[in-house]
Amino acid sequence: MAKKDRASVRDVLRIGKGSADETARHDPGSFPIGPHKKPQAQQELLGSAGKLAKLQEALYAEGVGGGGRSLLLVLQGMDTSGKGGTVGHVLGLVNPMGVRYAGFKKPTAAERRHHYLWRVRKQLPVPGQVGVFDRSHFEDILVPRVQKLVPAAEWRKRYAEINDFEAELTAAGTTIVKVFLDISPDAQLKRLKARLDNPDKHWKYNPADLDARAQWADYQKAYADVFAKTSTPSAPWYAVPADHKWYRNWLVAQLLIETLEEMDPKFPVTDFDPETELKKLEGVGVPA
Amino acid sequence: MAKKDRASVRDVLRIGKGSADETARHDPGSFPIGPHKKPQAQQELLGSAGKLAKLQEALYAEGVGGGGRSLLLVLQGMDTSGKGGTVGHVLGLVNPMGVRYAGFKKPTAAERRHHYLWRVRKQLPVPGQVGVFDRSHFEDILVPRVQKLVPAAEWRKRYAEINDFEAELTAAGTTIVKVFLDISPDAQLKRLKARLDNPDKHWKYNPADLDARAQWADYQKAYADVFAKTSTPSAPWYAVPADHKWYRNWLVAQLLIETLEEMDPKFPVTDFDPETELKKLEGVGVPA
Repeated sequence: MAKKDRASVRDVLRIGKGSADETARHDPGSFPIGPHKKPQAQQELLGSAGKLAKLQEALYAEGVGGGGRSLLLVLQGMDTSGKGGTVGHVLGLVNPMGVRYAGFKKPTAAERRHHYLWRVRKQLPVPGQVGVFDRSHFEDILVPRVQKLVPAAEWRKRYAEINDFEAELTAAGTTIVKVFLDISPDAQLKRLKARLDNPDKHWKYNPADLDARAQWADYQKAYADVFAKTSTPSAPWYAVPADHKWYRNWLVAQLLIETLEEMDPKFPVTDFDPETELKKLEGVGVPA
Repeated sequence: MAKKDRASVRDVLRIGKGSADETARHDPGSFPIGPHKKPQAQQELLGSAGKLAKLQEALYAEGVGGGGRSLLLVLQGMDTSGKGGTVGHVLGLVNPMGVRYAGFKKPTAAERRHHYLWRVRKQLPVPGQVGVFDRSHFEDILVPRVQKLVPAAEWRKRYAEINDFEAELTAAGTTIVKVFLDISPDAQLKRLKARLDNPDKHWKYNPADLDARAQWADYQKAYADVFAKTSTPSAPWYAVPADHKWYRNWLVAQLLIETLEEMDPKFPVTDFDPETELKKLEGVGVPA
């Protein structure tokens, strides 16, 4: 991937506190950086698969060797924005051994008896892992606010709680990448129709999706406040234009590659002497 | 994949109780079924990726729709037999959303305070998932036996305990596929040397691997007894000739495809009316 002659995808997509323009998001159908054509983007994605896999392998190896670092990708977005597809097409490029996926649906009765971060903590990546959150603790601000489930004071205090929580993770060695898959209402309309038109896709459709669609503006406002209040230098938000699936995949892969390159995971230095081990190995007799 | 003109990979590789010859294993370097050449095997593996991914998606969808079934792939084998590589090359073909990977290393002090199945139960796949065990509860027979860690009566009773455990999983909807990645001592020698020759692979090498290699015959005997006593009709063992990585990948992919085809997962039938939903969808106004 042409790192040298391109700006950083992270710089172009970063939003919220600390970015050049705190409220600016690129249009969901636009191409602010990188390839503008599907074949080129797909070819580049496949071309960068080896690099991503190698970086992930090094992070995993570092963890095996006693290193404490991990990566956490948080995926948020309106229904049909492509969270599952991103997991398949981008995380699918690395060894599943090192990937820990967690999907957060509507909390169960048992989960609701705990603090909202309780179930999230149970799914955190351990050293060496790439954790993927398909929805996340941010739902605990967005949904209660838009659906008016709790008093405003309740969800408002969660911005600071979440910032503290993420700062704690960062301090413990987890690099956090927060991605908003940004689709337009038109793109959602097309995708919901496609789901309804194909019986093999009906399982992805929920009549309640229409309620969230009807509250589109409320959710956009709630997201904007989340970005403004929880995009921190160590755990920034990136808004990924996601009307084009192939472009979304390319962008998220680039975000992960740039982040991992900066982390620069190292294959661990072991404390055995390879020459000595080779000699011992030759001396181990095994019956034919 | 030419299902029609080929015997079943499961029939050819099944070993232990219930198979045609309970003690017969194909040579680790042999090709008892399917492609004998690397390019053909790799091409066929890629060609079957879509089929495997579709079957996995249907199983996942079935789980979302309330179905109770899951698949559990148990991978066992001597050091360097390719458990991690199999996960990467075969499970890497499906969406990581539906894969739950669990590696079982030497039990920690905390784990040893519990029954040996305690940590295993925590990692079981939930409905819709493909679970992957990289080593498993069978280590709790193999290692104590070969290393003489507990009295023989202790590990001997585990055959029946494990059969009961697996029968319980089967009854609860989990289809179990147990794979022994079968390598020759020569292949292990080459792979251990390759790890020692490449600093980026040193993390995969453990000087204690040589102890296990020196006990090769003891482990083979212990494995043979495991196959004889725990290969059941509902949770059979398959011995995969694994000296050739590309052939091993092809075989494990085929085992999964055959198993999933027999499970025949179904995209769930939903209880909404698509026509009504389409009309409602058109009626939802979203601000531009």
